[in-house]
Amino acid sequence: MAELSVLGKRLPKVNSWAHLTGSAKYADDLFLPRMLYGRLLRSTQAHARITKLDVSRALAHPGVVAIVTGPDMPETIGIMPSVQDETALAIDRVRYVGEPVAAIAAIDEDTAFEAMSLIDVEYDPLPPILTIEDALREDLPKIHEKSRRANIFKEVHLSFGDLDAGFASADHMRDDWFFFEGNTHAPIESHSAVASFEGDGKLTIWTCTQVPHYLHRELEKALGLPRAKIRVVATPSGGGFGGKSDPFAHEFAACLLSMRTKRPVKITLDREEVFYAHRGRHPVKMRIKTGVKQDGEITAVHFQSWLDGGAYSSYGIATTYYTGALMTVTYRIPAYKFDGVRVYTNKPPCGPKRGHGTTQPRYALECQLDKIAVDLGFDALEYRKRILQPANSRTVNELRITSMGLGQCLDELGAKTKYSERHGQLPRGKGVGIAGSAYISGAGLPIYWNEMPHSGATVKLDRGGGVTVYCGTAEIGQGSDNMLASVAAECLGVRPEDVHVVSGDTSLAPVDLGSYSSRVTFMAGNAVKDAAWKLREWLLDAASERLAIPRECLVPADRRITDLRDPEQFVTFDDAVVLAEAKHGTLSAAGSYRPPQGIGGGYKGAGVGPSPAYSFQASVAEVSVDLETGVVTVDRITTAHDCGRALSPANVEGQIEGSAYMGYGEIMGEEQVFRGGLHKKPSLLDYKIPTSLDTPELEAIIVETIDKEGPFGAKEAGEGPLNSVIPAIANAVYDAIGVRFDETPITADKVLAALGKRDNRGMPKDRIGPEGMGDGQEAANAALRRLSFTTEAREKKKANA
Amino acid sequence: MAELSVLGKRLPKVNSWAHLTGSAKYADDLFLPRMLYGRLLRSTQAHARITKLDVSRALAHPGVVAIVTGPDMPETIGIMPSVQDETALAIDRVRYVGEPVAAIAAIDEDTAFEAMSLIDVEYDPLPPILTIEDALREDLPKIHEKSRRANIFKEVHLSFGDLDAGFASADHMRDDWFFFEGNTHAPIESHSAVASFEGDGKLTIWTCTQVPHYLHRELEKALGLPRAKIRVVATPSGGGFGGKSDPFAHEFAACLLSMRTKRPVKITLDREEVFYAHRGRHPVKMRIKTGVKQDGEITAVHFQSWLDGGAYSSYGIATTYYTGALMTVTYRIPAYKFDGVRVYTNKPPCGPKRGHGTTQPRYALECQLDKIAVDLGFDALEYRKRILQPANSRTVNELRITSMGLGQCLDELGAKTKYSERHGQLPRGKGVGIAGSAYISGAGLPIYWNEMPHSGATVKLDRGGGVTVYCGTAEIGQGSDNMLASVAAECLGVRPEDVHVVSGDTSLAPVDLGSYSSRVTFMAGNAVKDAAWKLREWLLDAASERLAIPRECLVPADRRITDLRDPEQFVTFDDAVVLAEAKHGTLSAAGSYRPPQGIGGGYKGAGVGPSPAYSFQASVAEVSVDLETGVVTVDRITTAHDCGRALSPANVEGQIEGSAYMGYGEIMGEEQVFRGGLHKKPSLLDYKIPTSLDTPELEAIIVETIDKEGPFGAKEAGEGPLNSVIPAIANAVYDAIGVRFDETPITADKVLAALGKRDNRGMPKDRIGPEGMGDGQEAANAALRRLSFTTEAREKKKANA
Repeated sequence: MAELSVLGKRLPKVNSWAHLTGSAKYADDLFLPRMLYGRLLRSTQAHARITKLDVSRALAHPGVVAIVTGPDMPETIGIMPSVQDETALAIDRVRYVGEPVAAIAAIDEDTAFEAMSLIDVEYDPLPPILTIEDALREDLPKIHEKSRRANIFKEVHLSFGDLDAGFASADHMRDDWFFFEGNTHAPIESHSAVASFEGDGKLTIWTCTQVPHYLHRELEKALGLPRAKIRVVATPSGGGFGGKSDPFAHEFAACLLSMRTKRPVKITLDREEVFYAHRGRHPVKMRIKTGVKQDGEITAVHFQSWLDGGAYSSYGIATTYYTGALMTVTYRIPAYKFDGVRVYTNKPPCGPKRGHGTTQPRYALECQLDKIAVDLGFDALEYRKRILQPANSRTVNELRITSMGLGQCLDELGAKTKYSERHGQLPRGKGVGIAGSAYISGAGLPIYWNEMPHSGATVKLDRGGGVTVYCGTAEIGQGSDNMLASVAAECLGVRPEDVHVVSGDTSLAPVDLGSYSSRVTFMAGNAVKDAAWKLREWLLDAASERLAIPRECLVPADRRITDLRDPEQFVTFDDAVVLAEAKHGTLSAAGSYRPPQGIGGGYKGAGVGPSPAYSFQASVAEVSVDLETGVVTVDRITTAHDCGRALSPANVEGQIEGSAYMGYGEIMGEEQVFRGGLHKKPSLLDYKIPTSLDTPELEAIIVETIDKEGPFGAKEAGEGPLNSVIPAIANAVYDAIGVRFDETPITADKVLAALGKRDNRGMPKDRIGPEGMGDGQEAANAALRRLSFTTEAREKKKANA
Repeated sequence: MAELSVLGKRLPKVNSWAHLTGSAKYADDLFLPRMLYGRLLRSTQAHARITKLDVSRALAHPGVVAIVTGPDMPETIGIMPSVQDETALAIDRVRYVGEPVAAIAAIDEDTAFEAMSLIDVEYDPLPPILTIEDALREDLPKIHEKSRRANIFKEVHLSFGDLDAGFASADHMRDDWFFFEGNTHAPIESHSAVASFEGDGKLTIWTCTQVPHYLHRELEKALGLPRAKIRVVATPSGGGFGGKSDPFAHEFAACLLSMRTKRPVKITLDREEVFYAHRGRHPVKMRIKTGVKQDGEITAVHFQSWLDGGAYSSYGIATTYYTGALMTVTYRIPAYKFDGVRVYTNKPPCGPKRGHGTTQPRYALECQLDKIAVDLGFDALEYRKRILQPANSRTVNELRITSMGLGQCLDELGAKTKYSERHGQLPRGKGVGIAGSAYISGAGLPIYWNEMPHSGATVKLDRGGGVTVYCGTAEIGQGSDNMLASVAAECLGVRPEDVHVVSGDTSLAPVDLGSYSSRVTFMAGNAVKDAAWKLREWLLDAASERLAIPRECLVPADRRITDLRDPEQFVTFDDAVVLAEAKHGTLSAAGSYRPPQGIGGGYKGAGVGPSPAYSFQASVAEVSVDLETGVVTVDRITTAHDCGRALSPANVEGQIEGSAYMGYGEIMGEEQVFRGGLHKKPSLLDYKIPTSLDTPELEAIIVETIDKEGPFGAKEAGEGPLNSVIPAIANAVYDAIGVRFDETPITADKVLAALGKRDNRGMPKDRIGPEGMGDGQEAANAALRRLSFTTEAREKKKANA
């Protein structure tokens, strides 16, 4: 392939101007004639039967136009059809504080707000289930009647290789418990949707969704309106991070209220409601038992995870699998057993958040590896390099690894941060930590069935030289529109800013499954490349004929098709389009991408995990711990990321930095926590998301491995880097003060307690090592003991060095 | 082909709801944030040099944001690249009263209006040229320096067959002069455009244009902005009729003002300005010399036309050719000579109006035929039937006739109106008249070059069952969106209302040349059919495979693909889409239409006239003339129209009725007339367009001939029916009072004069038979004499009957 003319260059993002100038129109910026304003009445109870729901007083309130309640949309809805367990609005029963119960449309927001208090709703409370432990008890009420045992939503048990033999052959064993606290996405833009049901019986909804296609499907079901009559338009997104990839009550309600009133209806959540909408990071209790040989080679891993899923399923099936599936792709593991349990509790449903399901186990694994390195006296960076899963291999759970750049990431990090030279050598209170991680480039296995493309795209060329790309991707700030424009521009030899991108519109663009699981660059990128390449062939043919120059000597770039050997010989892009159009007719081509067969296991439950390609990352964190106040300051996070090829290097760096920032927030302060079912911090004043001023210096290192199946070699870039940041910080804190924090977040409170400067009430003892889980209690006690573990092993390593 | 499931049915128009409920957003309904309001300063002079143009005082006026003048857009622009003679705003010279000289953008309309008077403009007047006669004089100033002789814009001289021999063999000769007065489109919606130049350097213009593609091309030229950076969106049109098929000053000005101010700019013309924008029906002076045998067979025709084109070219080349080209397609003419001259005058430019160029000569020809029938004592209906050009033939000027339903039209009319029984038999003051006509289904010959498609379309199917059609056609109220939806629905077996139509958008849809010359159903319809048919094949394949039923037994209709032999055997459309998508990937196909080669003459100047198919019409008008007041009342117009196949019968009837209404207005009262260059009636108060209350009873008869090349057999339906109405009324007036009106409109004034009840000052003598045209004066005098011609021939016919 000739040199790339667009990809890999530091070009401006094609759609940044609108955001920079404030002219981007978010859903809440839309105002349609005769528009009504909607508001959701939400449950005040964590768990209760609805004994009365009378909207008559509210309906009579001047300015109220319509009210809908649960029974108006009786179908269950949700992202994964096989496990749908919620309705658009609660019917008969509420399962968390904040669950939507009714929706009001009124002439203005104030009126809708006033009318909320006029809805007569009465509850008969049920005992709320609020912890994983309680959810596992058989003697408490079921949140969902269809749960087969206790309040378990899903159990996964998978085993690969000979675990017993593995453990038997180990020279050294570790058995650690970890707890990862739940947290939420906290997007700057709160959720908003405008629905308009028009006189032609067609419904349009503009909403900041990450998954227009899935929403489309669920709207059909809930509203009883054929999909051909529904158009979903994904508006510019002021942050998604997975939090806008479920279909939401306000979306259904806005649509139904518009259908009822024949007027457009807007519903924008307020900040408190965004916390109830949630679908964020699951709290996960984890245990990892790992055997290693004296040389550090892993012999077996048994990983157990208990996920606190909140009141509904969301993507919970996928989350449960993900906690186990990707543990194997970074380091050689010859035997692996995974047990995962997701439970229901009476809290807002958890769902996917950046790093979906893999963040928590990666934290556990990388912290444990750090312990093993200490135990065995290895340099943690070198140790990881020694046990890497190789490129072009299969993991024990049958995942196909193509390109694999974690070794390069570690090398680059080492060179940049001098990790190995500094680790264990810094004064007390200063520390440096390292961790690796991996992520998928989209989920590879069937969403519908094997044969269905995951992404489709069409590309159209006009005789005026215009290029339009249509692809159902949702631009959620991650840069997908820029990616689509750049890939098309590269194929066709134009500039990205020449390309008109039509995305996130179910009527205008072919289906793309959505912006989740870091699938867009890989899958939609491949679809656009597929379409654009067909047109490229026609353009090259036309130019070859016109110039009488062999096709293989021609290259399209900078709006010309030029003879590689003689830059004076060229046809302009516009002329080539005109020539090709005369020959072929309208220049439009379709492209698709479906992942290849055979990229993952054939076993039951292999549906989540297999991806056509994996990204790899490693981070080094540098921290300072104030030994008097317990305050941990992260001074710098350096992250190296194998993204295959950086189609837009500046954008990849932005993703790495954004991920690192988010990981930093998760480990240092964020927590979605409850008291008796009530969210303790449903505001950005209390929820400890870092501001830009809190954020450490972030450094991004791009590692390219040119994946054979990625579009121009690209893989995932948006999620993976978060995963390595969190354990790197935890490991750095250990390096600074010799204390392991096997639970997140690492607050000053906990640090002080660990340093013996105060009691350990900051450590919720009951969370580490649950009762009722066999050998859990002992392990929990062990985990608690390790909090006061001193630096014996650290001394050992120094001696080895 | 199996029975059609959509086409030919009386289904609701898919896009009518928006117009019916008022929710359609016309260009003037658009309001963008920070939008400015523009206004054009127009010339007060018919012909002058601009000696001073100082905008400084206006620019200083509070609220004025920018002003642009002619030199800011120095490129010549216009619809036909070869003869462009105007600039977006006048430079140095003005050529008609109302010509745009400068454009102001201000914070509101009032401010822009105020600022107009603050622009200091001084003119040095030149003698205005206001008549065809003056335009032909060599001694008067040239309006355009590049005119080679006098103020002649274009001369066309074409001769086919042996004219002299034809005339020599004639038994009877007629040599008649006619004058067709100019008139204008008078759309309900005045022209409006909103332009927005955005931060990404891209310009979007929403405008009620009929020709988004041509406007796109001219904007590139005038603004110096690549077409790939310009998006033209044709807004719903409140009437076009040809009057919105030029690129207009306000469109260029709105764009440039937006580029200068970085704010959206709206310019909406007021009603007076719409009269200056014009581009309407040319006043044409005509002479037809026709030889006939005793049996009525035509032996030769010599047709001469002088077109008063106003100040600029517009579509004038086409108009000039059209006055001659289509004379031959209705009746056998073995020898034909055509001389056409279009001149410049200092009046608003004339252009295309419904029936473009063919309306005036058709009036002349059909009135003359009526005279010949009278002369020879023939029934005018039977006479026409006897001399019909046959189907599947070539005319003397080499036009290819495919289907030809004029005979059927005449038959149906005769049966319906009892024309032959009633003509000549009604009491004095009552009359019945008949005329035939024809029109093109789009111009067949190259706009760019032979190989270029005239229409392109893409069709996309979604796994949700959605169908989207993309086609650059402009929906101007003629029903093109409905046509696109219906053709796609027929091909795919869905309902028109299931289809999402994306039209009139140069970024979203493939190129269609525009909504003019009745080309859309034929050309865009064929393009959509081409695209949709490819998808139909895939769907049929998938269904055949699934059902194990041979493909040829399957038919798609009503969202199912069904076994013709057993309606219980079917695959739903949605399922077929899913199956086909799994097999082929994204379901999107492109289609194109370019007219076939060899449909017209190879001679120079054959560029206008040849069409892939011709529509045919005939009208019978019934009139009452008040012999005291001279008032002519048209009681009823019945029009039969051969549209090939009526894809949407109700829409075709609407077009026939609309055409008849418009023709009625043109013959009975409308005139775009001037006094010293000043428009005499630039308001709907004075311009005599009929209201719905004035309108006679209109009856439409659809005649189907199933053209072999039309989409599902369809041909033109929007323009042709106007042409036969006008001469039918004139012929009916003759039948009522025995007076020929060889000029339009037929006003009460003229009728009274003709009846001898007042002097003939209503008849502008100088217009019939121009000085300076050889034998013109004599003929003119003859024409004037014929005004007092009594019913000698009429008596003769009666004797024959």
